[in-house]
This record gives sequence, structure tokens and C-alpha cells, in this order.
Amino acid sequence: MPAAPASTLGPPAYPGARRGGARSSVPQKLAEALSSQYGLNVFVAGLLFLLAWAVHAAGMGKRDLLGLLTALMLLQLFWMLWYMGRSYAQRRLIRPKDAHAGARWLRVSWVDTAVLRLLSPSTGYPRSCVRLFSVLEPLLQGLVQVSVTIRDTAPDGPKTYSKNYCFREVYFLWGHAKDIIQSFKTLERFGVIHSVFTNLLLWANSVLNESKHQLNEHKERLITLGFGNITIELDDHSPPCNCSPPRLCAALAQGMYYLYPFTIEYQILASTMLFVLWKNIGRSVDGVSPRRSGLRLRGILAGSALGLGALAATLGVVAVYLVHIGRSKAKSEAALAMFYLYAIALLLLMGAAALLGVGIYRVDEKSLDESKIPARKLDSDLLVGAASGSWLLSWGSILAIACAETRPPYTWYNLPYSVLAIAEKYIQNLFIIESAHREPEGLPEDVCTLRVVTVYNGAAATDSSRCGDSGVAGDTAPQEQLVQPAVKGSLGQQPDLGREEQTEARRGKGVWSSARRTPCFRGSAKRKVLRNITAFLFLCNISLWIPPAFGCRPEYDNGLEEVVFGFEPWIIVVNLAMPFSIFYRMHAAASLFEVYCKI
Amino acid sequence: MPAAPASTLGPPAYPGARRGGARSSVPQKLAEALSSQYGLNVFVAGLLFLLAWAVHAAGMGKRDLLGLLTALMLLQLFWMLWYMGRSYAQRRLIRPKDAHAGARWLRVSWVDTAVLRLLSPSTGYPRSCVRLFSVLEPLLQGLVQVSVTIRDTAPDGPKTYSKNYCFREVYFLWGHAKDIIQSFKTLERFGVIHSVFTNLLLWANSVLNESKHQLNEHKERLITLGFGNITIELDDHSPPCNCSPPRLCAALAQGMYYLYPFTIEYQILASTMLFVLWKNIGRSVDGVSPRRSGLRLRGILAGSALGLGALAATLGVVAVYLVHIGRSKAKSEAALAMFYLYAIALLLLMGAAALLGVGIYRVDEKSLDESKIPARKLDSDLLVGAASGSWLLSWGSILAIACAETRPPYTWYNLPYSVLAIAEKYIQNLFIIESAHREPEGLPEDVCTLRVVTVYNGAAATDSSRCGDSGVAGDTAPQEQLVQPAVKGSLGQQPDLGREEQTEARRGKGVWSSARRTPCFRGSAKRKVLRNITAFLFLCNISLWIPPAFGCRPEYDNGLEEVVFGFEPWIIVVNLAMPFSIFYRMHAAASLFEVYCKI
Repeated sequence: MPAAPASTLGPPAYPGARRGGARSSVPQKLAEALSSQYGLNVFVAGLLFLLAWAVHAAGMGKRDLLGLLTALMLLQLFWMLWYMGRSYAQRRLIRPKDAHAGARWLRVSWVDTAVLRLLSPSTGYPRSCVRLFSVLEPLLQGLVQVSVTIRDTAPDGPKTYSKNYCFREVYFLWGHAKDIIQSFKTLERFGVIHSVFTNLLLWANSVLNESKHQLNEHKERLITLGFGNITIELDDHSPPCNCSPPRLCAALAQGMYYLYPFTIEYQILASTMLFVLWKNIGRSVDGVSPRRSGLRLRGILAGSALGLGALAATLGVVAVYLVHIGRSKAKSEAALAMFYLYAIALLLLMGAAALLGVGIYRVDEKSLDESKIPARKLDSDLLVGAASGSWLLSWGSILAIACAETRPPYTWYNLPYSVLAIAEKYIQNLFIIESAHREPEGLPEDVCTLRVVTVYNGAAATDSSRCGDSGVAGDTAPQEQLVQPAVKGSLGQQPDLGREEQTEARRGKGVWSSARRTPCFRGSAKRKVLRNITAFLFLCNISLWIPPAFGCRPEYDNGLEEVVFGFEPWIIVVNLAMPFSIFYRMHAAASLFEVYCKI
Repeated sequence: MPAAPASTLGPPAYPGARRGGARSSVPQKLAEALSSQYGLNVFVAGLLFLLAWAVHAAGMGKRDLLGLLTALMLLQLFWMLWYMGRSYAQRRLIRPKDAHAGARWLRVSWVDTAVLRLLSPSTGYPRSCVRLFSVLEPLLQGLVQVSVTIRDTAPDGPKTYSKNYCFREVYFLWGHAKDIIQSFKTLERFGVIHSVFTNLLLWANSVLNESKHQLNEHKERLITLGFGNITIELDDHSPPCNCSPPRLCAALAQGMYYLYPFTIEYQILASTMLFVLWKNIGRSVDGVSPRRSGLRLRGILAGSALGLGALAATLGVVAVYLVHIGRSKAKSEAALAMFYLYAIALLLLMGAAALLGVGIYRVDEKSLDESKIPARKLDSDLLVGAASGSWLLSWGSILAIACAETRPPYTWYNLPYSVLAIAEKYIQNLFIIESAHREPEGLPEDVCTLRVVTVYNGAAATDSSRCGDSGVAGDTAPQEQLVQPAVKGSLGQQPDLGREEQTEARRGKGVWSSARRTPCFRGSAKRKVLRNITAFLFLCNISLWIPPAFGCRPEYDNGLEEVVFGFEPWIIVVNLAMPFSIFYRMHAAASLFEVYCKI
């Protein structure tokens, strides 16, 4: 497929429309390489700033880091304003949209995170309340949001999304995440990739702040477990707060830690959406858009009840854990044992559920949709990539137990926990990836059957997907109503059929409608099981997201790995891998939500 | 595109041939997820073993690490033997091949690295000569090679590759890298991905050994530059050698360090080839195979002379550097200043050359080949990914210079050097990526012209690509000879043309041949310039591969970054980024070789 050349100024051109036009054009592949390399340089430079700040590099203060982040955000803001202005000016042009990008789960998590994000005063530095940049930064993010809200109230969105209009006012991406930019403008590529890596840097910054905070808490706790030979001082911990209402400031600083997980998720979600936007630039769209299926909640009582039970239990376990850990050696060990036992039980259940789901797919053999969709490919890659982060932690624990010279009793629970954590993610990923690549349930079989019926009656068949929908509730009556009149009404009018043939056809009809009843019922039963599994896994993944996000991290408190690997190496491993582990749960829950809507 | 189901046993099936067959089948997407997750787990577990060994984890010795690596290699060996046996048994089946995989540059680097690899006694642990595993490991690798040689002498290779037969006997990949496994066997996927990650682990192991060695040398040198406040002991340095001929052992240990870079390149090359093999499993092949163009060396005198000059100069600079560095403070500073000045000059030349190349492409506007080819995509991604590693180092230097409180004069050279290192890689990547996506030069225009001539004379035109070939040498005579007789000889025989028309046609011929002379000449001149640029860049990249690979690493010896970031953080950054930086140069040279053959 040849690339269409792009001009750097002027109205947008569709691929091929301006072929061989201006000399200033850049082929798509080259524009991609240009912008991705720019983005990587921004990211790498930013990471080094973060590293320099984290290791207290000489001549490098927090002020410099915040200066860089602010400059990057300003640049992103300017670009977004420019893009929105351009979109507004050309709002009458038809623009192709990628129906897979900015999926439904993103909207759900978006509402969660954006709302909670707005509550959080700034990205990780409310403690230094007087500094210029910590005021500037939330202001900037607010500006971005306000300006986007203004743009999005302009009635240029496609009508199909009007139902979700109230949600679409939240953010730039809400309106543009599905855009397929066809003008190949180099400036747009640069702007999008700049935004991707700026968000990733903000994410890294938040993760670093959160890690420092957790590390400090951990050091305080660790001594109670008897691993007291740590000489490192507490880092960046509770600095004096010198802003005007000291109580408000202290409350903000305290509250922030509970809003951190949302901030972190928010930034990585924004990155992924922007990345899909970038990948979509210049993509040729095929006409087929996925069937939009609504969110139906009937028939998932078992799955959601189990899942909600797990969620409640997790909240309880986390509360007990946080109260007991670090109080005394005995209490800490009891808290750890409780957490491990609970997690083992939950992971066993989840693994079994996911295995059942994969098994059902194996029995119900079907071809998968293998078309290349950037959003879906990114989702799968993120799942496996984020899981790798948590596998690093689990393998570390396994290795530590194998190598340790003394093993306190509670550390033995660590072994099945780690093994199960690996296995559960492995199976769950398989289930999600296969679900994402399946064609929506219920279509092909029904279409095939109704075609056979059409041969008998010669009339146009009505919409066939009803069977799938009604099957959810478990009854097959509507389907029969739908098939029978069509067959009855037309059989008598067939001119070429003799009396015997008509009888045979009637008998045939009887055979068909009874034969159909079983597969349709079976299909609906399978779908019901799959929906219950998905609902259960969805709630369980949210459950397992809570403990590490809110400071219940046995990898820190366990102490065994630190003895084997040494304090610093293990802390580095945990701090690198933990953000991915947390992100995995959130992303898996989001993907499962999407899977649920599809089944 | 629906996936073809795969059976786990029995003869290979082509996609679609066994659709809807056995229940035991696994869709392609699922098999990919299954195997890639397995591979990632192997890799992650292996990395933690390496980490545990590197940080001297309690209860974890070199013996355990080598045990793991040996087990992984044994598993790979068994799989390879099984695969080769199966291939031999089914040698009469036509198997599709990916003409892009296992490209020409791989063969060239393969001969280099494999030969030098065989000279190197073992993967980084000849110093502990008596241990079981250090004997087992090279034995295993030898076994693999011998068994593959046996398999490859069986005459089952496609005839098109018989020219390269002598090369193909070296290794498994030599015979199978181009395979497109169509049977979708789950076992094959697992085997290939296991091999990929085993090779990556061996690479990581080599890199770790090399880093430890460099770090020890660095610590010894550092004190001479006045940065003497380092309290860390030398690690794993020159342990007592207790094998029977001590002099041989010592010589081996010494010589090994000069063969290390080849070992490292060998393993990562094997990984990339295996990864392409894995990505190719189940791919549907399009009929078009790329034009095989030979290696022509005419007309690149300027580029190769400049490049060889650079290569010779680099060897001199490295020799002087290694002799002077660490002798005294003054000598070290002089060596650093010399290295920086030389590298600045070379990078400036390289950047200018690559920019000229990109500029020529921009003037000569052409559509790019955007088809999805796993091998080419991997090459581009590796280039950009490996460059990111070296960008990390360069940005670190820039940040260090910006933050440092005292800056000795020689550190100032570091700034332009780092900036140029970033810019040069940026531009060079653009040049290589665009070259890789261009259709081979010279075809379209010539074909178009000859088609016009064919309208006149009604005869079949002879091969048109000659113009391009002769144009390389700068003369257009052969082309004219080729076109003129065809036109002359056939014009008189045209029955439908009147006298006037024939005259017009002759005039037309004259117009065409004179009109063609200029573009063809211009095209050949452009091609000549591009070839010279590519040859120059190829040799320069080899030049710049030498210094870091053989211990000339100013990032270590400079001292400035260590003062700013602290010793340990900076050493960790360098040890993580340096392997990618070294790999970048090798990979860029290889890609440029491929580009050269294509132009």
C-alpha cells in the first residue's frame, strides 16, 4: 500500500487525493519514525531528570524537574488548542472514526479516574505548598480540561455519539480519541506523540512519588518484623509545610495518598488512548464497524454475587492488614499469613473461572477475527507486558524462598501465592485475548439456520440476532414465534410444491424448529456461563487492584526477599515492577468489562 | 482473516486445509499468547537468577545460574533435534519461505560472529576452569552446531539457495530462518519462543560478565582522574585459576575479553532471527518476492575511501586511548579530549552524509512499500529501540554537564559529542528506515519508458533494469544501444503506419531517447551518491562499534556523570544502556549493508 504524501499546511487531504503534490511531503513511514524518535528522546531525557531527582543528584532540585514537566505540559496544551481550533474550523468535513479506539471500558474508567483526579490537588507535590510550579501544574491541567470542554460543546460531533454527550464533555480525548487523522500532518504526529510521552513522564513522576512514600512506610514497618539492619534514612518524608492554612495543607497531603492510585491510572489511560490515536494517523478504515451491544445485567447473579463477596472480603482484609502490619512482630506475621491465605483462595477461584472460560471456547470451536486493529493489539500487548512486571515480582519471591537459609513459617504461604499469581495471570490473559478476538456471539449459527428456513418459504428472513438476545434470559419462546409465522404464512403460497412436498416441508419445519431449540439453548447457556465468569473476574480484578494500590504490599513487608537479594536491589525491583502489577489489574478489569459487553 | 486450526500431532496442514478438524486445535492468536507468555516467564525467571548472582544473593551461586542456563540450552537442543527430524521426514513437502527473513546482512555478520564465537571457549566463565558447567556449556553449543551440520547436509533445501550452500551448513538458522511454519503446531511455537528467550538470557549473561569486567577496569582507572572516593571493592576479578595448564588458562581468560563483543552480537543475532521465525509461524505469504540484487562494488571509491580512513583512524584513536587512559591524570584527560574531538568530527561527517541521503529521497519523491513484513518491522524497531539505549547515555551526559558544579575543560567536549550522538542516530535511523521501505531503485521509471517505446514498435521489450545497472558506472551508452535497435528494427515492419506517422514515430523515438538520457543519468548519479553515502556510513558504524566494544568507554572514564548522579546510579544506567548502544552500531551497519545491496 503506497503512502499518500502529506502537505504541512492547508486543508486536510485524504490518502491519494494529493498524490504527487507538493515537494514538502513526507511519507507516512518517515513521519512515524521522525515523531516516534522525537517522543522517545523527550521520554528518555525526562526519565533522566526523574532519576537525577530520585538519587539527589548534585545541582538538580525538584524545581528543575517541575520546570521540565510544566514546559512539556504547556507545549501539549498549545498543540491541543491548535488541533481543536483546526478541528472546529473544518467541522463540516466527514472524518473517519475508529470504532475500536476509546472503547467503552475507557469511558467507565475515565469517569472514575477523572473525577477522583480532579479531587487530587496536584501531581504528587502538595507538600511543598508555596512553590510556583505546584500551583502552575494543576492550573495547567485544569486549563486543558476547560478549553476542551468549550471545544466539545460545539455541535460538530457525529450524531451516533449524542447518547453519550454528557460524558464526552470531560476531555479532549473524549472527543478525539476515535479520530483517524487522515491528513498525515507532521505537526499532528508530533503533537500526539508529545502528548503520549508527556503523560508517560507524568505517570513515571507519580509512580516515583508513590514509591518514595511506600518505601518510607515500609522502612518504618520493617523494623517490627526483626529485619532491622537497614541503615538508609527516610527519604523526602513529611517535609515542613509552610503554606497559609497549615491544617488544610496537612489534610491535602494526607488525602493525596488515597487519591494517588487514581492519578496514576488516569495518566496511563491517557497515554494509551493517545498512543492509539497516534497509531491510527493515516490508517485506512475498513467499512465494517463492530456491532454496538448494550450493557445487559440479567443472568449474572452467581458471578456478580461471588465477585461482590470477594470485593467486600478484600476490603476487610486490607483494612485488617493495614491496621496490624508494623505494630508488632506477631501482629505483622499474622497479617501477612491472613493476606496470603485469602489471596491464595481468591487466585484459585479466579484461575479456575478463567480456565473454565478458555475450556468453553475450546469446545465451541470458531474462527477468530485476526484483522489488525491498533487499539486491540495495544490492549493485548499491554496485558502481557504489564503481567510481565508482576511476574518479575512473583519469580523473585519463588527464588527467594528457594534460596533462603531460614524460612519463618509465614513465608511458606508466599510460595503458593506466587505460583498462583503467575498461573492466574497466564490463564486470564488467554481468556481475555481470545474473547477480544472472537466475533460477537450468536450471529453465525442463527444466520445459517434462518437461511435454511428461507429456502423453504422463499421469503426474506427477518433480523436473526434476536435468538442470541432472547437466549440470554434463558427462554426460547420469542425465537419460535419469530420463525413459525414466517414459515407458516408462506408455505401455502408456494406454486411449485405438490401436496406431499408441502407436508414434507411442514414436517421439515417441525424438525428444524425443534432441532434449533437445543443449540440455541446450549449457546445461551454457554453465554450465560461466560458472562458470569467475566463478571466474577471483573470484580475480582478490581478487588486485587485495591491492596497494592493502597499500601498493602507483602512484597515489601515480607522481608524474606530483602534478606536474600539485599535491601536495595529488591527495593529497586519492587519499585520498577509494582506499577506494572497495579496497572495490570486495572487494565484486566477494563478489558473484562469490554469482553462482558461483547458476549 | 480467520485462523486455521492446528492439530498437535500428525503431518503439517496448510491454512484452511484442516479447518473444523480436530477438537484439540488452538487458534493462532491463542497459540501466540500461550507461547509468548511462556517465553516471557522463562526470561523473567532467568533475569532474576542473573540479578541474584550479580548482587551476590544469599544461597545463590554461579553453579545455580549455570545449571539453569544449561537446562534451558538442553531443552532447546532437544527441540531443535525434533524439529530437524520432522523437517527431514517431510522434506518432499513444498514449504513457503519468507524471503525477507534471514537477510543477507545476517549471513555476513553470521560468518564474522560464528567463526569468532567458536574461537571463544565459553560464554563468559573460563576463569572457573574446573567447574562442570563451564565444560558442559560450550560442549552443548558445539553439539547443537554439529547436529545441525548433519541435518543441513541432507539435500532437502530449496534449489534457489544452492548458491549459498557452503554457508548454509553453519547452523540451524541458516537452514530454517526463512521457514514459514504453516502447521501452526503449538510445540513448534513453544520451541521457537523458548530458543528466542534462551538466547536472550545467554546474551544478558554475557553482557553482565562483560559489564563486571569493564566496571573493574574502570574502578582501577578512575582513581587516576582524581575521583578517588569510591569505596566499592573490585567484583569477581581475576580469581585464582586452578586448571592443569595454568598458562593456557590465563591466556584463554585474557583472550576471551577480546572475543566477548562477538559472542554478545552472536546471541542477539540468533534471538532476532528466531523471533522472526516465530512471528512468521502461520503467516500467509504473498507471491511477490523481493528482487535479488548482487553485491556490486563499482563507483563507491569516495565513500569507501573515506570510510576506511575513518576505520583506520578509529583503530589508532582506540589504541592511543587504551594506552593512555588511567596512566596519570594528565594522560587520561588528554586521551579523553582526543577521543571526544575525533568522535565529534566523525559524527558530524556521518550526520551530514545521512542528511544528504534523506534529502535525496525527499527530492526524488516516490511511494514507499508499506506492506507488513515481520523481519523488516523488527529491524526498524530494533534500530529505534537500541538507539533509545544510547540516547539515555547521551542525555545523561548533557544533564550532568548542565548540573555539574565544577567542569574540568575536557568535559566541555562531552556536550557537543552527546548532542551529535543523539542527532546522528536520529538522522541515520530515518535514512535506513526510508531506504528499507523504498522499492528497489531504477525499476518503475525505466519500465514506464520502455512501455512507451513498445507501443511504437509492437515488439516485446527486453529487460529494462539494465539502465539502472549501467548507470552505476556513470555511462549511458549501453542503454542507448539497448533501446535503439529494438525501435529501429521494428519500425519498418509496422503495417498500419503511414510514412508521416513513421517519421513522427522516429522523431518520437529521438525525443524519447534524448529525454530518457537525462533522467537515467540523473537517477544513476543519485544512486551513485546514495551508494557512496551508504558505504561510508556502513564503515563508520563499524568504526564506532569498536571503541565501546573493546573497552574505550568515556562514559565510564569521564567521571563527570558519576559526580553528578552518584557512582552507583550512573554505573547502573551505563551498564543497562551500553549493551544497546553497542548493539545499535552493529545493527545499523548490518542494515546499511542490506540497504547498499538494495540501492
